[in-house]
Amino acid sequence: MQGRKLWALLGLAGALGMGSLPAMDAEEGMWTFDNPPIKALESKYGFTPTQAWLDHLRLSSVRLNDGGSGSFVSPDGLLLTNHHVARFQLQKNSTPEHDYLRDGFYAASEDEEMKSPDLEINVLVGMKNVTERVEHASEGIADQTQALKARQSEIAAIEKESKDATGLRSDVISLYNDSEYWLYQYKAYTDVRLVFAPEEQAAFFGGDPDNFTYPRYDLDMALYRVYENGKPLHTENYLKWNTKGATPGELVFVSGNPGSTSRQDTMSELLFERDVIEPDLLEYLDRVTEAEQNFASQGAKQAERVESSIFYYQNDIKAIRGEHEALLDKEVIAKKKAEEDDLRAKVTANPVWEKEYGGAWDTIARIIEPEKADFEKRFFRRTDSQLFNIALEIVQYVAEVKKPDGERLPEYHEAGLSSLRFQLLSPAPIYPDVEKLNMTTTLKIAEEKLGAQDAYLQAITQGKGIDETADALVEGTKLADVAVRKALLDGGEAAVAASTDPMIEAAKRVDPIVRADYLYHRDHVSSALTPAEEEIGKARFAVYGKNTYPDATFTLRLSYGTVEGYPYNGTQAPPFTTFYGLYDRAASFSNKHPWDLTPKETAALGKLDLATPMDFVCSDDIIGGNSGSPVVDRNGDLVGLIFDGNIESLAGDFVYDGEKNRAVAVHAAAMIETLRKIYGANALADEIEGKQ
Amino acid sequence: MQGRKLWALLGLAGALGMGSLPAMDAEEGMWTFDNPPIKALESKYGFTPTQAWLDHLRLSSVRLNDGGSGSFVSPDGLLLTNHHVARFQLQKNSTPEHDYLRDGFYAASEDEEMKSPDLEINVLVGMKNVTERVEHASEGIADQTQALKARQSEIAAIEKESKDATGLRSDVISLYNDSEYWLYQYKAYTDVRLVFAPEEQAAFFGGDPDNFTYPRYDLDMALYRVYENGKPLHTENYLKWNTKGATPGELVFVSGNPGSTSRQDTMSELLFERDVIEPDLLEYLDRVTEAEQNFASQGAKQAERVESSIFYYQNDIKAIRGEHEALLDKEVIAKKKAEEDDLRAKVTANPVWEKEYGGAWDTIARIIEPEKADFEKRFFRRTDSQLFNIALEIVQYVAEVKKPDGERLPEYHEAGLSSLRFQLLSPAPIYPDVEKLNMTTTLKIAEEKLGAQDAYLQAITQGKGIDETADALVEGTKLADVAVRKALLDGGEAAVAASTDPMIEAAKRVDPIVRADYLYHRDHVSSALTPAEEEIGKARFAVYGKNTYPDATFTLRLSYGTVEGYPYNGTQAPPFTTFYGLYDRAASFSNKHPWDLTPKETAALGKLDLATPMDFVCSDDIIGGNSGSPVVDRNGDLVGLIFDGNIESLAGDFVYDGEKNRAVAVHAAAMIETLRKIYGANALADEIEGKQ
Repeated sequence: MQGRKLWALLGLAGALGMGSLPAMDAEEGMWTFDNPPIKALESKYGFTPTQAWLDHLRLSSVRLNDGGSGSFVSPDGLLLTNHHVARFQLQKNSTPEHDYLRDGFYAASEDEEMKSPDLEINVLVGMKNVTERVEHASEGIADQTQALKARQSEIAAIEKESKDATGLRSDVISLYNDSEYWLYQYKAYTDVRLVFAPEEQAAFFGGDPDNFTYPRYDLDMALYRVYENGKPLHTENYLKWNTKGATPGELVFVSGNPGSTSRQDTMSELLFERDVIEPDLLEYLDRVTEAEQNFASQGAKQAERVESSIFYYQNDIKAIRGEHEALLDKEVIAKKKAEEDDLRAKVTANPVWEKEYGGAWDTIARIIEPEKADFEKRFFRRTDSQLFNIALEIVQYVAEVKKPDGERLPEYHEAGLSSLRFQLLSPAPIYPDVEKLNMTTTLKIAEEKLGAQDAYLQAITQGKGIDETADALVEGTKLADVAVRKALLDGGEAAVAASTDPMIEAAKRVDPIVRADYLYHRDHVSSALTPAEEEIGKARFAVYGKNTYPDATFTLRLSYGTVEGYPYNGTQAPPFTTFYGLYDRAASFSNKHPWDLTPKETAALGKLDLATPMDFVCSDDIIGGNSGSPVVDRNGDLVGLIFDGNIESLAGDFVYDGEKNRAVAVHAAAMIETLRKIYGANALADEIEGKQ
Repeated sequence: MQGRKLWALLGLAGALGMGSLPAMDAEEGMWTFDNPPIKALESKYGFTPTQAWLDHLRLSSVRLNDGGSGSFVSPDGLLLTNHHVARFQLQKNSTPEHDYLRDGFYAASEDEEMKSPDLEINVLVGMKNVTERVEHASEGIADQTQALKARQSEIAAIEKESKDATGLRSDVISLYNDSEYWLYQYKAYTDVRLVFAPEEQAAFFGGDPDNFTYPRYDLDMALYRVYENGKPLHTENYLKWNTKGATPGELVFVSGNPGSTSRQDTMSELLFERDVIEPDLLEYLDRVTEAEQNFASQGAKQAERVESSIFYYQNDIKAIRGEHEALLDKEVIAKKKAEEDDLRAKVTANPVWEKEYGGAWDTIARIIEPEKADFEKRFFRRTDSQLFNIALEIVQYVAEVKKPDGERLPEYHEAGLSSLRFQLLSPAPIYPDVEKLNMTTTLKIAEEKLGAQDAYLQAITQGKGIDETADALVEGTKLADVAVRKALLDGGEAAVAASTDPMIEAAKRVDPIVRADYLYHRDHVSSALTPAEEEIGKARFAVYGKNTYPDATFTLRLSYGTVEGYPYNGTQAPPFTTFYGLYDRAASFSNKHPWDLTPKETAALGKLDLATPMDFVCSDDIIGGNSGSPVVDRNGDLVGLIFDGNIESLAGDFVYDGEKNRAVAVHAAAMIETLRKIYGANALADEIEGKQ
């Protein structure tokens, strides 16, 4: 699935750089909306998107704070995304009486639509290039750490000015290896109600085995309705539905929020990723997943509580393993090496460029070298407990908000505070048994990797055993109560200082240690890496112009491509699948989970037109975070819904292979066919098709 | 497809050796019926085949001289094989009015059953170990060439004695690197009539792209009836049909004739195969295929004439390319190296073994070294014209039959003459335009590779141009007339000497050249390789005992395995497919060829039970030549029909990988379901199911 906020787990990996691109594969690129690939579209497809076309698509697209993308599909705020993006909210809304994740949900009327506890969606309404202002802030400052801080202050100021002036969520993002800075302004909506979701098994047919593969037979869709002032949002910015849907050979676009790529990484960064980051990350994920699976095997209640977590861990493991295998593939490494060699050769050939940028690659390699030893220490200082992380965020929050915006830790800038508070005050349930499990699992990993005397570990355990510590903290804390959290946030530093809540006290002990780690990394790695990466970004601009695209940053991008199969398994994968294939794959595994049909699917035989396209593939360049993105045709009408990439696309973190890299989408026809014939949701289908 | 007599194209590759096996993968092995893997079956499956079980299966199995396998499936001589094995006969029987290959065939009564022009089937009725006698023949002969000749004479004598005594086709075959020699006695049948074949498109749905892959949706079956003395053969040796068919997890056996494997090859032989043989072979096949495809594009008549040839060339190319990629795979090479190292280490550790066998690997490497230069010369002395090859065989035939049996070229031993004459006198049509095409294509390749002055080429062209030569030879020869061939064969040396038929004259000029090549290879390569390979075979016996199996030799073998899926495409391939999948794959390619449904398949929607298993996979170890082999359960009842291997099985020439190597079979239920519901062949289905 292309949804998980995996990159959030990996502050460092994101910070560790970018690189450059020479000639690109045919349909490569996650383009910003200010710089769409007009020339390629004109020359290859004879299609020129107008500014109105681009604006309409951008304003119809949304980002979800659950880590995915979506789009408006009706004038009354109906919002289409993936079931696996909505699964957090489905689970949070479930009760002992109603398991909406398992059984699905359909609100036949507005009254029945179900509010999401902590879902925020963002629409990118403004984009402004602020590069000059950010770069100006650090001009003449020789010390790299001071220069970085000066830029961070300026960025915070820009964000705050924008937020104050417009009320919009305002983020300054860096693109092209920090060669450009943009102010992105978002309209945020927090009253988002669930309208429809199929059963999990229909959405995720084939489970973890079929995840990240194709051919596929999943109905991975969900529909929300966005409300404003207690009423359905009325908007002109929605995508018309093309029920015929995507057709083979057709040009299609994807508008969504790819989370993170490492396409611009230098060779030294890629090898660091391969040899240091990924092995640690895979080991960590394998172990926490195994622990939760053991927990799940204890009973139905336990299984339900960790189901989503296991689901995402498995997704991450499969994705990272695919990326790791890509970096172990000699051809991928050779391609990346050739790209780097080409750029470096062109830089070297020009004396001015060579003087300005020529040393950047070696600088990066030199900075990374000591990281090989340091990374593991920082990485395993990690406690996977919601309550502990809430405590740490509260402790940091009350301290940071008192500082000038520019001097705060990045997560606590003024412009992002309302979204952060929305998350911290989520009423979604937190289970003590799961908390204990995850705390003990991750602290035991930390103990094994860092030694029992590690300062981080000691700050939490104070010399006690890990099991004992987790019991005491989880049982002693009152942070599961949202009111308690709110009182601490509102009470500020004094309230937090006075708190004897054991989790808050543990967080207070841990806070200086993680701050020191952050500052060390900032002052010894980021502040030196940033200018070197910027040099490479500028070298790339100098050599190739702006005919390239920046690495993904979970901000809105436009991809283009063709609906087409690809070579697979010694033959060809088809451009689309049909409902016949769903029934084939289920029967061919004797209907055994995860290839079991739902009772409704079984009952629908005889009603469904089995030749209806179900899922399809297109060569659009996407990655995790694109889940839920609309696929649109030349008219800008919706023809599909991205939910995954094929197994070959997992190399896409580093390199796009136009021959085999494919995005996987639910077909527009399949959504209408099932809404009408499986779910009896004719009114909803009418609203989507504009037949009201 | 697992059917083509590809190995026949490659006399040399077959002669170039064998090697050894240490520990085997779970279900590895193509076992001779005298040495079935009883222990493995008992320990892993708790199953002990009785001698009666083995005899019944062996006597129910057949080999077809069209290059495949089959089995008796009714007491009245009904014989099941693949459509792609029967396609030669379907094509030879077709007329301008009836295209049986395209449209299929069904004889509703015995009267309508259609005689095959040149099909011979063999049933292995006797097996006798003659190792002692063959080895005795060369005892005390120091000269290797003389020793080889002595053995060949003895082999010819054994074959002739057997043939004279029993009237049975009698072949002495060598197994385990010439460490064992066996007399195999076959009952031959030449009155074999076609009863049923589906349309080619139903049998070969997915065409060349899907060939050698799985999941698959092919009805690759055909039914013959064997006649004796003008009446259907009545036999007790037939397989009962299990209409429920193969079930997931079930132990199943395959009884058939795998053509050729190189599992025992030494590393030096494997690298010779990879670096010398396969590149030449692939280039040759690519070029002759391209020439025939160009010819086919000229019109329907032309296309029809080369259709089967292209079909098999594409099959060969895909197979050889897969084998070539396997040898380029470092893991495969590492595995083979580890096997060889293990055997050599064990030999070295025992002083007696080391003295007897230790030098064999280096000997083989030394013999092969000059072959790197010689192979290409011999390989490209090749003319792909039926008439030319008939002429050459006639010229050699009349000379050879006058010699003592033991001194003849191997193809002309007494015991094989009747089968050879049956082929030479086939009434199947030969098309002059195709003859000219193939002669010019292959002679031009020879000219390019060997130079216009090459003796072989000169013997054919006598200095004239290649186009002119082909025109003159094909237009001038009368050999398309079976009576002319018969007159020459019967007239013997005098008739051939007197013949002024231009093709015969060309063959007479070429004959001494190919004889010299053969003799050079025999005296400088085979005669030295044979004892070295025999030493390795004996070393393997000494080290591992007879718990291994010999390389494939297109003789009857027993494989065992489980009906099970395998890891593929990032997920799992299912153990079987269903008819739902056929309709899915057709629809998902918009019914475009080669994924188009036949009119009958389209019409059958609503009649067929789409959940019926169609094809399935099992871990039985098979290879080309196994096409048409029955798959039987513990009861010895037929549950499926082998027709292919998956893409991963192409490495099977060298190494069996139990995790991924799968045989692909038509499911017993699919054959009954389609006979009854698509083809209206209820009487035939009744005969098969024993419901008469």
